[in-house]
Amino acid sequence: MRWTFVNNNFTEAENAFIQTNDLALQRGYAVFDYFRTLNHQPLFLDDYLDRFFNSARELFITLNHTPQEVKAIILQLIQKNNIPQSGIRMIATGGYSPDSYTPVQGNFILQQQPLQLPDAVKFEDGIRIMTHPYQRDLPAVKSINYLMGIWLQKQLKEKGLDDVLYFQHNIISEFPRANIFIVTPDGRLATPAHNILAGITRKKILEFAGDILPTEVRDISVTELKQAPEVFMTSTTKRILPVTEIDGVRIGNGKAGAFTRQLYTQFLQQLEAVTVSGHNPF
Amino acid sequence: MRWTFVNNNFTEAENAFIQTNDLALQRGYAVFDYFRTLNHQPLFLDDYLDRFFNSARELFITLNHTPQEVKAIILQLIQKNNIPQSGIRMIATGGYSPDSYTPVQGNFILQQQPLQLPDAVKFEDGIRIMTHPYQRDLPAVKSINYLMGIWLQKQLKEKGLDDVLYFQHNIISEFPRANIFIVTPDGRLATPAHNILAGITRKKILEFAGDILPTEVRDISVTELKQAPEVFMTSTTKRILPVTEIDGVRIGNGKAGAFTRQLYTQFLQQLEAVTVSGHNPF
Repeated sequence: MRWTFVNNNFTEAENAFIQTNDLALQRGYAVFDYFRTLNHQPLFLDDYLDRFFNSARELFITLNHTPQEVKAIILQLIQKNNIPQSGIRMIATGGYSPDSYTPVQGNFILQQQPLQLPDAVKFEDGIRIMTHPYQRDLPAVKSINYLMGIWLQKQLKEKGLDDVLYFQHNIISEFPRANIFIVTPDGRLATPAHNILAGITRKKILEFAGDILPTEVRDISVTELKQAPEVFMTSTTKRILPVTEIDGVRIGNGKAGAFTRQLYTQFLQQLEAVTVSGHNPF
Repeated sequence: MRWTFVNNNFTEAENAFIQTNDLALQRGYAVFDYFRTLNHQPLFLDDYLDRFFNSARELFITLNHTPQEVKAIILQLIQKNNIPQSGIRMIATGGYSPDSYTPVQGNFILQQQPLQLPDAVKFEDGIRIMTHPYQRDLPAVKSINYLMGIWLQKQLKEKGLDDVLYFQHNIISEFPRANIFIVTPDGRLATPAHNILAGITRKKILEFAGDILPTEVRDISVTELKQAPEVFMTSTTKRILPVTEIDGVRIGNGKAGAFTRQLYTQFLQQLEAVTVSGHNPF
């Protein structure tokens, strides 16, 4: 049996419902966040909780639980479901709005699912992507608005590509669900500064990458991107994944690059340390 | 008791649920449409059904009912609920997607609620609005993405304003839930041509307005808007509503203008004719 948490109660996942008059369903108005567990331990939970509550605040969505309460519920959920490696989604909606437009007391949902991460082969081959001119609304907020990302899936499938990178006015920003980094020809690591969701994986990498190569958080043009010897995406479910082709242009030698591999190894060690050491990420 | 229809069944509105793993809740991925009933008759239903099914098609959302079937269900809903003047919302979602990203067989929902329309006083006074630089994604599709419109509600409330008009590159487009028309100084009626949702009320007005004044569907700048002697919004729930102040600039004499009044009277007569004549709008 899989458990989901809705507002104040644990319920079977298949019986986890919200009324059809919720503002999430009526107007796409909700925020969420998504983190991993490894060996039954949530990774970087405080960072995800901070971002989740910040997203809610930015959209004037009120939660009926404090971050401390949500933490406690998450621990219960992990115990009840007993899935060693999982993704946990937190959602806070605009609520059952009488006028179908004004946010009211939100509905709060926690869902857990088994999670399969990319394997070593996928890492070596990397992914092939296209660019697309687009800017997400309120990018610093993790809202549920994925209209463009999902709509573009059909094009990606037809072209046999793995993902799409957004840019605007020739400056790249992010993937629908991931951040981007480049290694420059002179061996610096750069990632976009503006108009993005600040990923937790991105943050963790920026924290330790300085030991390996100089880091820069700044604007990156599409031109610079395509000439970069190494490019990779970062996200909770992908960790670090090389980008080996962009709009038909091969990046580097079409395989995972040396710096990318070094950063990946370092990040894997860090993840392992968090869980193996028994260090409590709370 | 109020009835709602979900997929294949009528259910009490308070017991109308969808599972929390629907793509509408997970990713804001769904389309909808909304029409009025007057004297228990749906107004311009064929137009709304066309747009609804077109929106679904554009987002690759599959419905398990044909337009003819949806019509029949709507008639049953109207009979069961017995609300003379109402709004009926049709929603088609991305469905219970196993990967929380790829649209599958959608969920279909019909909701009916009593509807209060603006009265004669509101018409005379008109509304006060602000402009905001924004362009909706996939504007021709009536998706549930109202992130920006709802987020801006707080600013509107603080400024004591009624609504917000979007523009981009100095060209106006639409309100979050309504279209816009202007009367030019030389007595022509104009409404934006591009980057909008093609409103059904807008369409109906364009059909008969030519008998009253010449009509133009074209780009309109913010500058031209603010110098227009008459401005009004059109929507299903507002019909025609004068705009009497924009970004603090008074429009005309700050009251409903003569052409606006003439178009409004004509439109009201048309609505009445549809229902009083017993003409079946199906």
